[in-house]
Amino acid sequence: MEYQEIGYQVEDGIATITLNRPEQLNAYTNRMRLETLDAFDRIDADDAVRVVVVTGAGRAFCAGADLSAGAGTFDYDKAPEMFGGDDLLADGTPRDGGGTVVLRTARCLKPVIGAINGAAVGVGATMTLPMDVRIASEKARFGFVFARRGIVTEAASSWYLPRVVGISQAMEWAMTGRVFPASEALEGRLVSKVVPHEELLPAAYALAREVADNTSAVAVAAIRRLMYAGLSAETPWQAHANDSRLMTVLGAAPDVAEGIESFLAKRPPVFPMSVSKDLPDVVPDFPRRLED
Amino acid sequence: MEYQEIGYQVEDGIATITLNRPEQLNAYTNRMRLETLDAFDRIDADDAVRVVVVTGAGRAFCAGADLSAGAGTFDYDKAPEMFGGDDLLADGTPRDGGGTVVLRTARCLKPVIGAINGAAVGVGATMTLPMDVRIASEKARFGFVFARRGIVTEAASSWYLPRVVGISQAMEWAMTGRVFPASEALEGRLVSKVVPHEELLPAAYALAREVADNTSAVAVAAIRRLMYAGLSAETPWQAHANDSRLMTVLGAAPDVAEGIESFLAKRPPVFPMSVSKDLPDVVPDFPRRLED
Amino acid sequence: MEYQEIGYQVEDGIATITLNRPEQLNAYTNRMRLETLDAFDRIDADDAVRVVVVTGAGRAFCAGADLSAGAGTFDYDKAPEMFGGDDLLADGTPRDGGGTVVLRTARCLKPVIGAINGAAVGVGATMTLPMDVRIASEKARFGFVFARRGIVTEAASSWYLPRVVGISQAMEWAMTGRVFPASEALEGRLVSKVVPHEELLPAAYALAREVADNTSAVAVAAIRRLMYAGLSAETPWQAHANDSRLMTVLGAAPDVAEGIESFLAKRPPVFPMSVSKDLPDVVPDFPRRLED
Repeated sequence: MEYQEIGYQVEDGIATITLNRPEQLNAYTNRMRLETLDAFDRIDADDAVRVVVVTGAGRAFCAGADLSAGAGTFDYDKAPEMFGGDDLLADGTPRDGGGTVVLRTARCLKPVIGAINGAAVGVGATMTLPMDVRIASEKARFGFVFARRGIVTEAASSWYLPRVVGISQAMEWAMTGRVFPASEALEGRLVSKVVPHEELLPAAYALAREVADNTSAVAVAAIRRLMYAGLSAETPWQAHANDSRLMTVLGAAPDVAEGIESFLAKRPPVFPMSVSKDLPDVVPDFPRRLED
Repeated sequence: MEYQEIGYQVEDGIATITLNRPEQLNAYTNRMRLETLDAFDRIDADDAVRVVVVTGAGRAFCAGADLSAGAGTFDYDKAPEMFGGDDLLADGTPRDGGGTVVLRTARCLKPVIGAINGAAVGVGATMTLPMDVRIASEKARFGFVFARRGIVTEAASSWYLPRVVGISQAMEWAMTGRVFPASEALEGRLVSKVVPHEELLPAAYALAREVADNTSAVAVAAIRRLMYAGLSAETPWQAHANDSRLMTVLGAAPDVAEGIESFLAKRPPVFPMSVSKDLPDVVPDFPRRLED
Repeated sequence: MEYQEIGYQVEDGIATITLNRPEQLNAYTNRMRLETLDAFDRIDADDAVRVVVVTGAGRAFCAGADLSAGAGTFDYDKAPEMFGGDDLLADGTPRDGGGTVVLRTARCLKPVIGAINGAAVGVGATMTLPMDVRIASEKARFGFVFARRGIVTEAASSWYLPRVVGISQAMEWAMTGRVFPASEALEGRLVSKVVPHEELLPAAYALAREVADNTSAVAVAAIRRLMYAGLSAETPWQAHANDSRLMTVLGAAPDVAEGIESFLAKRPPVFPMSVSKDLPDVVPDFPRRLED
């Protein structure tokens, strides 16, 4: 697939997805949705990618859904492609389009870092929630503006937002639909840090390098799945069962030998395993129901 | 129902419930419980109410259960009315009375803001947890004092407190039964802000106005249910299913057209839909079990 | 059981477990695991113990798994005792050893306070997560270093860590495997406070005294179980059912009479009930599945 509305580069183990409709403040379209879904498939298949950074071209991150269709923007009969196209829920309900990107991000085998360079509003805000860490420029601003448009907090944000920032902060932002600055996002723990604008990508890449230079790709993929499965699990007993299966397999695999030996020798590790070939089949996933 | 122990006013879209036994520091009684339950029914039925503010008359918010019955206060055989009266669990267990108010607050279709003006202790603290945002006066103080009285953290606070403030902070407050000042509540994220005493109600009403002046009542009602259903959901897939159903209905409804058109025209919205008439039947609820 | 690798003292209602292999930075062994499990059994059975403090001897808290077996440390065929020995999952999978200690800590009937005196790395970090409160010395440092060793975040930390510090902070620490100072642990809410090194044990004991001097032992045991059951529960309705059962029993029990009377008389309480004899059978537990 050739990308028209996103940029995609891989360098030194880091893939960068750049939302790329700067004249429209990277307003979200069905094409952008499909390109992003495709990019995540490439990322998972490419062992050269250890970490993903997502950012926006120009002065916005993503200003929300493209409203050029006006009042009919969110009407399935008028704009079915905004709803995930032919991919329906088991009961025939059209899928919320933002959710399709969020659920794909959720299952990515590489960590995802959001580098929020400007306005992240509506789906531009909710699409960042399944990313593992969000770093903001001082120029960033955020808004879960759905209630001001007459619709609901979409893109599975009702699962993510109260877990990322707490239910009280989530409700305050969602019930007011307020647009707020990076400082409020930091105080509410939506972002891990706020940096001067020109330091945004360097900060995101520095964090990505910490992962790429020091860790086992297979371990990180397994940990990402394990951690979200743990957040979904009813009790620590289920996490323990997942741990036990993974430790039994990975504890006897080549990466752990290299991990221990390099640590004891105080040298950088060179892990032999790769995600495409060596991911154990006991890596857990979000528990799924038949109807999902 | 005529109210003796609470005040109830509606003005400019905001309902105010005032716990009103100031001589007894608004100590909680069965009558106060029944009046509060009734007030929430009025609130849900009245489209003139967009947001709820709960506060206390006099110098306390609510000093906890009225202990004038002494050692028998929490003994069902001696004071069955403190237990929710005739409304029993499916297995015949008397219902914890505080829980009946909390579960009613949880299902309210309008956002609820706690304006904590003074001591909020015991059930006076736990009743605030299903409110969406808590704002405190500098004079407020809090205490989950149950362990000091020989009973447990009630009113479903074992569900809310670790989700609102985190499990470690929840356990520290619950295991010590400590009474603590507003500053500690702020640091522990039990309240969103602490303001000078005379600015408490203005701050609560300012937040309420943000909701009432800018948002669709139907969208906010749907979002409140969606967000707590999301917090209850095992995975983002369930949130996505809820989103998809709501977006399909609300995306084609009159409020979204007004929301988009007013936004594009940079004018205040005038949403045509109302909660009493137009709430879609796909609005989710807390998942319930037969035995609940 | 005689302890060789931990210290165990009980004084004035507080049990102290001291990880005690100071020359090896208290590196975790199977013997230490078994001794810790035994200590928690003693703690639960001994009414003289109201609160537990866990700390380390010497300059570390626990530097992680003892790596003296080198590359084979986590290989079940070479070191089965690190996996919980004969205690297997229902499907025959060897149990992750760290998880056995964490799940035992999770079910302890007394609150557990971690006094983190130095390096808490690997299992040295994850074993602290089911403790209720963690207090750190300025000299403490932490690391969820598993990805650097080629293994996964174990000891049920995928359940605890995102609930204790939030999923974004959990993923940042887990995906980088970074070792970080006490200040970062405080900012990320892994610890409740950081104190000068010599004030660490006094701070932990002061918190323990707040519990021991003021609260009903039975109420605290019930609250600890109730709160974690609440964190595990899908909805507040389940918490309400647990509350109702506990309030019905404890509301008519001797401790509540003493709790109310001592409060009204403004004197310290002397609670008559004990955990070993009087814990109600309606005290909830983590919901368990047959296969756990």
